[in-house]
Amino acid sequence: MTNDESGAVSAPYAVILAGGRGTRFWPLSRRDRPKQLLAFLSGEPLLRETLDRLEGLVPPEHRCLVVPEDLVGACAKVAGEVPLANVFVEPVGRNTAPCLALAALHLRRRDPEAVMLALPADHHVADSKGFRSALRAAAAIACEGPLVTLGIKPTRPDTGFGYIRVGRSMGELEGQEFHRVDRFVEKPDRVRAESYVARGDHLWNAGIFAWRVDAFLAEIERQMPELWKAIERIDQVLGTAREREEIGKVWSALASVSVDVGVLENAVEVRVVPADFGWSDVGSWSALREVLPAGEGGVQRAARHLSIDSENCVVVAPNRLVATVGLKDTLVVVVDDAVLVCPLSRDQELREVVRRIEEEGLTDYL
Amino acid sequence: MTNDESGAVSAPYAVILAGGRGTRFWPLSRRDRPKQLLAFLSGEPLLRETLDRLEGLVPPEHRCLVVPEDLVGACAKVAGEVPLANVFVEPVGRNTAPCLALAALHLRRRDPEAVMLALPADHHVADSKGFRSALRAAAAIACEGPLVTLGIKPTRPDTGFGYIRVGRSMGELEGQEFHRVDRFVEKPDRVRAESYVARGDHLWNAGIFAWRVDAFLAEIERQMPELWKAIERIDQVLGTAREREEIGKVWSALASVSVDVGVLENAVEVRVVPADFGWSDVGSWSALREVLPAGEGGVQRAARHLSIDSENCVVVAPNRLVATVGLKDTLVVVVDDAVLVCPLSRDQELREVVRRIEEEGLTDYL
Repeated sequence: MTNDESGAVSAPYAVILAGGRGTRFWPLSRRDRPKQLLAFLSGEPLLRETLDRLEGLVPPEHRCLVVPEDLVGACAKVAGEVPLANVFVEPVGRNTAPCLALAALHLRRRDPEAVMLALPADHHVADSKGFRSALRAAAAIACEGPLVTLGIKPTRPDTGFGYIRVGRSMGELEGQEFHRVDRFVEKPDRVRAESYVARGDHLWNAGIFAWRVDAFLAEIERQMPELWKAIERIDQVLGTAREREEIGKVWSALASVSVDVGVLENAVEVRVVPADFGWSDVGSWSALREVLPAGEGGVQRAARHLSIDSENCVVVAPNRLVATVGLKDTLVVVVDDAVLVCPLSRDQELREVVRRIEEEGLTDYL
Repeated sequence: MTNDESGAVSAPYAVILAGGRGTRFWPLSRRDRPKQLLAFLSGEPLLRETLDRLEGLVPPEHRCLVVPEDLVGACAKVAGEVPLANVFVEPVGRNTAPCLALAALHLRRRDPEAVMLALPADHHVADSKGFRSALRAAAAIACEGPLVTLGIKPTRPDTGFGYIRVGRSMGELEGQEFHRVDRFVEKPDRVRAESYVARGDHLWNAGIFAWRVDAFLAEIERQMPELWKAIERIDQVLGTAREREEIGKVWSALASVSVDVGVLENAVEVRVVPADFGWSDVGSWSALREVLPAGEGGVQRAARHLSIDSENCVVVAPNRLVATVGLKDTLVVVVDDAVLVCPLSRDQELREVVRRIEEEGLTDYL
């Protein structure tokens, strides 16, 4: 959003975090096919949907990815329009603060006042237009200096998200009201979550941010001296033959810290843009009930679900006929080599399934 | 068992009824792959197990099949040792009386006093040696003239089988006691079935018989005049160019009658050999719990079942890993193109599943 030499306002950059390795969608998700590469909603991989959502807001040459080394190929294939120079590799996962700092370092080389949007690769958004409006406003606000976060209007007292307590209004930009942030709240217990939703003064922290790279890096320097030292070391070698080796060394010594905890919570100036665009982090199989259209016996994706007296199930079975009798609130996932049948209320126990698979040396199934 | 010219006792013939078309094992069983061709117990098709069980009792050239026309190829392949002249084709299914009469007609040409064993192709027997002993005795008794049926000692008050009330003992042959049959009882209600089992004087009718072909055909002539007329017509053309055409015409006009109702119930002289060789008709998915070895979370076949807190399930999923969480008393069947999840107590509702598949024109899945 800074003025380039011609005087035009330059478009923001988008940094898409595509490093997820979750097993919460086993057996559909695998080591080499994590959630962001799965096509279980629209038929396109979530990463592709995330990129498409930026159409008209972030030009292709401003779209960037942060990915683990072994997913570079698969992610680059899905993100055909993203220049390879915009694919930033994280040698090992160290949560969001380090990889966003690395991305900011890259972008500072191109434009020290560049506005950078930080976006997870694997969320679902029902209303893309509303999403772009909110981000356009966030970018405009960030242009002035503060770090900006989107706050999602909660639809239920979810205890799985962090919340943002909204402070006083700071006015409107690009048609969107925005506020000071009173404080960030870590995942609350049920009672607190209920009071937050009832009072209406808390929003979900969706991990979607906007900031100028100089402002963000200044906060890193101020709040995260170890990370800052690492970034300065990397800065010495960026674009040279030693870049990958040096990042590899530096990275493994870093602590895993989220950008929320490491930067946002104690940043000097933070703003929140309240937003409501049909957001879901698609955090588990049971979340599919919110985002897939309802059909016979529940929701289904890429399957022909033939239900006899079944209710509220999630059935994912690419190119298969799935018949269920008397099945309630149950997840059925079938892929070529593996099958999962699990009550939706127990989908957290997938961790235990995956642990057992590892323990029994069945790693081909991971 | 009749004496041939050399004075030696000739071995019995076995007529294996392989005409089943059931959908009770959908989605594993299909139109072109009915239950007798499925390999869900030992890894061999049930028809193959049935043939192997005859080793030492019935020589290969005395083994015969009755099959529908479109299964001739598949059954003959499984029954490699059976001469093609012993594969008798039924043009349309008319239950067991007509097809056993046809088989008896074929065998009469070879030896009018031949003893013929009638066996379903798709049952399970745990103790093959005990099975052969019982049948050896049945054949020896049949050699003297009566129709002989095996009676299985009931292990539970099953209402899905016919019962045989055992009459007075007629002595012992080949080490097996045998009895008159007091009467055949159609599938009883629960209360009766319980009293039968408690009293110990009733046996299950397993559809396994032995008789001389002349004695059997004499009963057909006496009790089933329409069928007898048909058999006489077929006798005129057997072995000629008109055989298939004529059988085709005659067959479609026949009534469907089981050999139990049409012949056994009112036969002049019937004997029963009580037997106990670990028999199951494997009549439904839930029957697999009796015949497969118990493992983690229930029984499984050709699958790697990873159970988290699951109990008493039946999992059949060739070459797949199946993970279940908190699943009780449930059937999970997975094949390449179709999946079934169903409480074992509701496996009768498979009929409804199959009806729906037909109704919706998804006939590829049948």
